[in-house]
Amino acid sequence: MTQGRTDRSGSGTNLDPWYHHYAARAAGLSASEVRALFAVASRPEVVSLAGGMPFVSALPTELIRSSFDRVMTDSGAQALQYGSGQGTPALREQILEVMALEGIHGSVDDVVITTGSQQGLDLVTKLFVNPGDVVLAEAPSYVGAIGVFRSYQAEISHVPLDAHGLVPEALRERIDELRGAGKTIKLLYTIPNFHNPAGVTLSWDRRLEILEICRENEILVLEDNPYGLLYFDAPPPQAMRSVEEEGVIYLGSFSKTLAPGFRIGWALAPHAIREKLILANESAVLSPSSFNQFVVSEYLRTADWKAQIEIFRGVYRERRDAMLAGLHEHLPELTWTVPTGGFYVWLTLPPQLDSKAMLPRAVKELVAYTPGTAFFAHGEGRRFMRLSFCYPTPETIRLGIRRLATVIDGELDLLDTFAPTGQLDSVSLSERSTAPPPNMN
Amino acid sequence: MTQGRTDRSGSGTNLDPWYHHYAARAAGLSASEVRALFAVASRPEVVSLAGGMPFVSALPTELIRSSFDRVMTDSGAQALQYGSGQGTPALREQILEVMALEGIHGSVDDVVITTGSQQGLDLVTKLFVNPGDVVLAEAPSYVGAIGVFRSYQAEISHVPLDAHGLVPEALRERIDELRGAGKTIKLLYTIPNFHNPAGVTLSWDRRLEILEICRENEILVLEDNPYGLLYFDAPPPQAMRSVEEEGVIYLGSFSKTLAPGFRIGWALAPHAIREKLILANESAVLSPSSFNQFVVSEYLRTADWKAQIEIFRGVYRERRDAMLAGLHEHLPELTWTVPTGGFYVWLTLPPQLDSKAMLPRAVKELVAYTPGTAFFAHGEGRRFMRLSFCYPTPETIRLGIRRLATVIDGELDLLDTFAPTGQLDSVSLSERSTAPPPNMN
Repeated sequence: MTQGRTDRSGSGTNLDPWYHHYAARAAGLSASEVRALFAVASRPEVVSLAGGMPFVSALPTELIRSSFDRVMTDSGAQALQYGSGQGTPALREQILEVMALEGIHGSVDDVVITTGSQQGLDLVTKLFVNPGDVVLAEAPSYVGAIGVFRSYQAEISHVPLDAHGLVPEALRERIDELRGAGKTIKLLYTIPNFHNPAGVTLSWDRRLEILEICRENEILVLEDNPYGLLYFDAPPPQAMRSVEEEGVIYLGSFSKTLAPGFRIGWALAPHAIREKLILANESAVLSPSSFNQFVVSEYLRTADWKAQIEIFRGVYRERRDAMLAGLHEHLPELTWTVPTGGFYVWLTLPPQLDSKAMLPRAVKELVAYTPGTAFFAHGEGRRFMRLSFCYPTPETIRLGIRRLATVIDGELDLLDTFAPTGQLDSVSLSERSTAPPPNMN
Repeated sequence: MTQGRTDRSGSGTNLDPWYHHYAARAAGLSASEVRALFAVASRPEVVSLAGGMPFVSALPTELIRSSFDRVMTDSGAQALQYGSGQGTPALREQILEVMALEGIHGSVDDVVITTGSQQGLDLVTKLFVNPGDVVLAEAPSYVGAIGVFRSYQAEISHVPLDAHGLVPEALRERIDELRGAGKTIKLLYTIPNFHNPAGVTLSWDRRLEILEICRENEILVLEDNPYGLLYFDAPPPQAMRSVEEEGVIYLGSFSKTLAPGFRIGWALAPHAIREKLILANESAVLSPSSFNQFVVSEYLRTADWKAQIEIFRGVYRERRDAMLAGLHEHLPELTWTVPTGGFYVWLTLPPQLDSKAMLPRAVKELVAYTPGTAFFAHGEGRRFMRLSFCYPTPETIRLGIRRLATVIDGELDLLDTFAPTGQLDSVSLSERSTAPPPNMN
């Protein structure tokens, strides 16, 4: 039965009798670096600043339990049955209320429930991307989106971001370059709020400018917004979808504002597109889980879900503060972004360091992070790392940052001793082109 | 917002500003005839023999409720969290016990939990099928599988079945033909037990012969077995996977033995393939719902699930009997298959009738069925219809068959009055090539 493992690159080995039978797109399926880290980071003695798991323990299970009881009493037979490919009307109505908090006004008819917003990414890419088509994405971008785009053989083209998000001028230039090279650009994929992994938020002016650029160039915007309601001070600017209806597919999720274990997300799409999204959803899973849709719907109907989101905000704000304080204290010479919501800080290392190469040493020191390379399509990002403050307690975060500082200082000492400085500087320069200027620390 | 509807063929209209932006594969996404029927058949006065909804009301909700309570008490934080792309080890172990009932011995390491077995179909097709590759499937075949194959631009080639299932000689001939034409054949998709829609079961000898043919020709077998445990008398022959490990991907489901609302199915794959299936699963949905996996796992651990399946068998046996009795009484001149398990009877109409054209008249008479055309890739099947006995009560089934007989008799009267016989016979002959000889009624 177990006759040798294949490697995890998706390319197979000659121990696989079906090695020559895979579709061309299967070569794009590779294990993310985040995935490999889950195994490492699950050892209890390791402080993991790597994963993106929400802190679901802040959710009173009593709220879920009572929702469940009412579902089984009132609608058991429906909740256990197949549903429609679009999702239940009741939940879609409630999703309109959730989106209204970010300035979005849509029709219940244009909401499609998905198995997490990850599936929204998958379905939209399946619908629009031919092999070789270009998807524009921030540099860096969400690792799970890069994986989806690759799995449909998209060409991923990164566009720089800075402390105010994706840079419109850079987007314009990239589009011109790609058009000049005869490429077909299908989507701009963006996470405007509390970016994963960069932690930055796209300014209002840039939202308008980017929408205008995409409108001019007939590029569909895929606006991914799992974190928008998890702001720490003021709300972020309104969603791009709030001012542009025909050119934006908006993806939302209950994974961060309720719990990821339900796998309930949604897409709000232009009317013509949502019809095809429903067909793609039916083809993929017949229907999203009725059971989970009923439980989430009942939760939204009866629990004070806005107050619960306020609790989550407080939890994550405290953890963000702990992480920033730790960075100020232990790594004052480095730079990092200062997120005003969400889960992530993006740290820039000294030019001579390599976050991917350094990871085994970090794990030996009992701290884990995600190397920047996970968030680029073509191996860039070695000077960066993503630090997640969502899951560990503030105390654990401070301990983790202390350990991380030990690792970084140790690496720098080692390099000072053995490597000539000039040589290392040349490495750093090649990285700078994709570096987002961080907020000042 | 609502600016004109697109048609449901997946081809879009010029009201869709993104009409020219879809991927080539999007043209393969079309609304199934079953889907359109769900809307029609949901009117309470219509007896629907169309859908494939299991009778979940036969499941005591108390069993689900107590499983849920224990999950929230013992493992709430895990059940609400992201999980692994492969699924929980506990549920995968339990799935081995379920499969052992059909003669399958596998490793827990080779089971991948999916969002219903529909997603298993989607992931396997994504992994293996390039545009233009051939997928072999029974004539007729499961409508949802045809949809998936189309959505990845497969060429679907139907192979005849008869009362004992897929015909090995026909399979051999078809493979030779396709190879002769330079085609690449990637998969044989088969439902050996209580076939959807044909209601027939593949004999043991044929299972062995078909495995041998596929082995010789290096064709991967995709064995879809949602109904195997729902037998009415003796169990069906053991699964094809029980004798062939490297050449079969086996798909299982809890949708019929427990409830479809959880969307929990699984794939058991050769070791090398399952690694790529996990990657494909992560790319599509990150992980299957932890919440639902925990609830199903707890149900299997604490409830007498085998006794519950025995209850389902009794329910469906009684309904099958009601349908067969109704057919004998009201439509004795027709032929149909006699299923020994599962959900479906496949009815052959007199040659001059067209099940698709007749459907509106049937709905007017307050009975719905699924036209045979839904189960073929290229518009064949007008002489057939699928009758489902899974959801309505025995009384309702008898009423539905009586109404159906009225419709059929009315159509025949009409044709006798207005159409010359010879002309109609020539229509029937073109259909015969794909007709499965039914069991005798």
